[in-house]
Amino acid sequence: MNDIKVVYNSQDKNFRKPFGAVELGQKVKLSIVVNKDLMVAIEIINFNGDSSQIGMQKEYLNNGDYKYSAKIDTSKSIGILQYYFILIDGYRRIYYGNNDEKLGGEGQLYINDPVPYQITVYEKCNIPNWYKEGIVYQIFVDRFFNGNDDKKINFPKKNSFIYATWDDEPMYIKDNMGRVLRWDFYGGNLKGILKKLDYIKSLGANIIYLSPIFKSASCHKYDVGDYEIVDEMFGSNDEFHNLCKVADLKGIKIILDGVFSNTGSDSKYFNKLGNYDEIGAYQSPNSKYYNWFKFINYPYQYESWWGLENRPNVNELEESYLDYIVNKKNSIIEKWMNLGASGWRLNVADELPDKFIRLIKKKMNSINNDNILIGEVWEDASNKISYSKKREYLFGRELDSVTNYPLRECLINFVKGYIKSSKFKKKIMCLYENYPRENFYANMNIIGTHDTERILTVLDKKLDLLKLIIVLQMTLPGVPVIYYGDEAGLEGGKDPECRKPYPWGKENDKIIKFYQKITEIRNNEDILKKGNLKIYDTTDEICIYERRYEENSIVIIVNNSFSDKPIKCPEIEGEYMDLFRNKKINITTNSTLSAYEFYILGEI
Amino acid sequence: MNDIKVVYNSQDKNFRKPFGAVELGQKVKLSIVVNKDLMVAIEIINFNGDSSQIGMQKEYLNNGDYKYSAKIDTSKSIGILQYYFILIDGYRRIYYGNNDEKLGGEGQLYINDPVPYQITVYEKCNIPNWYKEGIVYQIFVDRFFNGNDDKKINFPKKNSFIYATWDDEPMYIKDNMGRVLRWDFYGGNLKGILKKLDYIKSLGANIIYLSPIFKSASCHKYDVGDYEIVDEMFGSNDEFHNLCKVADLKGIKIILDGVFSNTGSDSKYFNKLGNYDEIGAYQSPNSKYYNWFKFINYPYQYESWWGLENRPNVNELEESYLDYIVNKKNSIIEKWMNLGASGWRLNVADELPDKFIRLIKKKMNSINNDNILIGEVWEDASNKISYSKKREYLFGRELDSVTNYPLRECLINFVKGYIKSSKFKKKIMCLYENYPRENFYANMNIIGTHDTERILTVLDKKLDLLKLIIVLQMTLPGVPVIYYGDEAGLEGGKDPECRKPYPWGKENDKIIKFYQKITEIRNNEDILKKGNLKIYDTTDEICIYERRYEENSIVIIVNNSFSDKPIKCPEIEGEYMDLFRNKKINITTNSTLSAYEFYILGEI
Repeated sequence: MNDIKVVYNSQDKNFRKPFGAVELGQKVKLSIVVNKDLMVAIEIINFNGDSSQIGMQKEYLNNGDYKYSAKIDTSKSIGILQYYFILIDGYRRIYYGNNDEKLGGEGQLYINDPVPYQITVYEKCNIPNWYKEGIVYQIFVDRFFNGNDDKKINFPKKNSFIYATWDDEPMYIKDNMGRVLRWDFYGGNLKGILKKLDYIKSLGANIIYLSPIFKSASCHKYDVGDYEIVDEMFGSNDEFHNLCKVADLKGIKIILDGVFSNTGSDSKYFNKLGNYDEIGAYQSPNSKYYNWFKFINYPYQYESWWGLENRPNVNELEESYLDYIVNKKNSIIEKWMNLGASGWRLNVADELPDKFIRLIKKKMNSINNDNILIGEVWEDASNKISYSKKREYLFGRELDSVTNYPLRECLINFVKGYIKSSKFKKKIMCLYENYPRENFYANMNIIGTHDTERILTVLDKKLDLLKLIIVLQMTLPGVPVIYYGDEAGLEGGKDPECRKPYPWGKENDKIIKFYQKITEIRNNEDILKKGNLKIYDTTDEICIYERRYEENSIVIIVNNSFSDKPIKCPEIEGEYMDLFRNKKINITTNSTLSAYEFYILGEI
Repeated sequence: MNDIKVVYNSQDKNFRKPFGAVELGQKVKLSIVVNKDLMVAIEIINFNGDSSQIGMQKEYLNNGDYKYSAKIDTSKSIGILQYYFILIDGYRRIYYGNNDEKLGGEGQLYINDPVPYQITVYEKCNIPNWYKEGIVYQIFVDRFFNGNDDKKINFPKKNSFIYATWDDEPMYIKDNMGRVLRWDFYGGNLKGILKKLDYIKSLGANIIYLSPIFKSASCHKYDVGDYEIVDEMFGSNDEFHNLCKVADLKGIKIILDGVFSNTGSDSKYFNKLGNYDEIGAYQSPNSKYYNWFKFINYPYQYESWWGLENRPNVNELEESYLDYIVNKKNSIIEKWMNLGASGWRLNVADELPDKFIRLIKKKMNSINNDNILIGEVWEDASNKISYSKKREYLFGRELDSVTNYPLRECLINFVKGYIKSSKFKKKIMCLYENYPRENFYANMNIIGTHDTERILTVLDKKLDLLKLIIVLQMTLPGVPVIYYGDEAGLEGGKDPECRKPYPWGKENDKIIKFYQKITEIRNNEDILKKGNLKIYDTTDEICIYERRYEENSIVIIVNNSFSDKPIKCPEIEGEYMDLFRNKKINITTNSTLSAYEFYILGEI
């Protein structure tokens, strides 16, 4: 097929317009340039799997090539529209698709099975500005701060262990089968968070995302025991309410972690251990919670999250569960929003039916229009398939935001030098293209969570690299997340190491100060919160992108290599204000950037 | 050999006089009755293994039998003298020995290899009355009482765990190899003991035996880290000194647990983990402690207690160790006695060289004459062999007292009905015969320790049986030990279950009251403290013994069966004061004792 040359770039307005995801009903114009006079059609695959073809109109170009164009109708349904091109050259039928994603190369011609391009079609939704323009501070409650003056532990749980000192290394106490024998606690609590609100504020954060706080046996509380009350070790419902009120006065919103794919086996619903007064599903088939669970061989065998006996899965769509969690007056969703929560993060969203998530969002919107629903999704959430089903997270009716693990991977790979700036651009632009703009700007931009290694550990303790990744995180579109303690220099591998207590009194002040400076820059600049993103094509180790909002722009330049590099980007030459160093700087043809350095350049 | 009939009973003064162990140099007259005119000799085996024969003098008895007698000289050395009889009947050479111990039957004739009888020959020693006539309360410090008003833990150790509640079930946190990963603490301390002295006193105890209290990593502290200081979690040297002073004012003595067969690997002597400032043996061969330890492959391989890497064995006779622990001025032995300890219990005495124990006792006696040295020995300590060496514990120069595990076994077997009263008599009398009287009356009469199942658990939670065993323990010669919490109804299997925290506020008051009543009877009666023991031959389930001191006696009767039993013992018929029920009672030919009941009968 060497005789046929095709030019197409889905991210270039000359080939696809408008850029990226589109609102339901919006027309999308697709164009493709070929060096030959052919018949060209577009194969369109709708979200429901139906496909159709549209012929493209031919236009002769001055250079001798031909441009083929057509408009696609997106009014059928929200979801993912997929497309590729069919070139009919006499007896030959050739496909042109997008193999970037799968093979890492350029778009190319296929004899068959082309990889389709994606157009995300969504229903318009408005995500509150406090979230989109905010910075999140993620707290794993047990490990953050014990607010009791005497450092006593609130209502320690029988047959659990308390770490002897706040500086202890976390560990699981497990049997030979890997089952947790006793839960381990440091004693962080809501009062501790209340006392540290000013500290959190000083970091530039205006949103706190709390790991689960409802009563449960474990330290992490993903094994919910009672959706209705704050765990006694963490505090009380009143304390939560008060925390939200005080935080609100300081301009801080609070988001809760909702675990709705399973409860704990030691819960008032399942009550395997008989620790609760109510009759649980495990105890009797007459329990009012019996239908919530998925018994295989009653009562001993039941479906559970990752096969963990302490986390029995629920039937989210079971009417009584749905009522309890979502629909009824003062349901769990409503109760906690009334107590002051400004949003929910849905744990393991992939395990939750779309309908369930949709109903939650609907309920939330019926309470107020200023809330946020985040989903824990580890991949590109626009085209996620879980349990063989295409998920509908980001089409305007479900999630506002997702955990942006793909960005995390990309940033880490880039600052560690595993990928070059061209690949960095491709990865970021792919998300930018696939996500509805509103969601892309509401992406939860994490560089570490309670489920990953600490970022400083990932970066081999190199502060230079840490600074770079923070700069990238804080200047790209999306909502940056500071995982408690990352700013203080905490290190550690995966769980439990990444859940060490915050090192009060032993913080790395340099990192804290750096965070403060960068978040200040971000918080002061609408451009960094709302501006469009343009990534330049550059040399390997220099990454340059522009954020532009209305008439103003900021240019970010990052060098991910261990030597000085020429900036070499004629488009951005000119005079700037170096926002980090607070001095003027002139970028010329000869400008270089030092090893592992960055610029955040504002207009003069 | 059916033609020859022999009568011999080593515990009958007609056959051996005096009874039992004898002081060095005391003559022992042995007699044996045979139905035939023979040559009879005694084969005597000295402690050093030499043997000799003594011919016996013949005497014709009126009933046609012959009595053969001889006197044995015991002046050669302290130790165990063994003997058996040789009967020469013309061409036949027949032995008569003591197979009771080994085969459980009666003495009998042997063709060869007779089992010898034992005469323990000792040097006179005086054991203080406060001990011999006292009652011990054994405390496992971490589990007894946290004396801090706010229940805070004194100086919790980094990377250890604190039980969330005082009611938690104890457990070891171990890896797959069975190694302890983290130590577990409840937070009992010396201040707690200080606050409970009146409680201990109320139980009738006047001696407290403390599990090890010196600084160390573990909760049990058998892995000594520093012999010179009280563990910070338990308190301070000053607190110990004060505890001894206050206890003394209340008439309570304190005995320490000394661990001298090993230190901890995490100690200032070995310092494997570098937690101590001094240069430890593990760290450098130039360490002044290097010679204390037994390296096989320096530094990684070394001899250790039961192969536990955290308990390296020491060369007890290494001069610098001996100096440090025993000989030098203000040695460890002396230091703690000066701080108020009235004695030591030597952990795993079998692991300690006789010379080492002898030097300790000598040192102790050079400090004062009112101290007590107890050895942890699990078997009959008079003839114990460890590492192929005959031990010299009870010959007047080493131990005053040993942990009377043989008694414990016997009492348990009897109250549970596994052995009958005849067997009970045999077992008790064997110890009575073998131990020097002073030591027998100083035996540490335990029914449970930190190394055994809780007595209530052993007795299947049956309070009736518990009462019986307490009565036996408190009315037999020797020093009764109450293992903390036994009196409160604590249950549990072996370590760690037998180390549960004392159940403050949830005590079984019935058991406490019973203990108080029985210890009051014991403490009021010199007879029960000092009186000779005579056990009657009775029917299977009734056990009767008399304690006699000077002209007075107390008779104890116990029924270990689940039905009423006739007492049937003409020798004890008469009128008594039932000391437990405080009323007169007449024991006649027709008297019975109810199922699982007992009498403690004083004179009227």
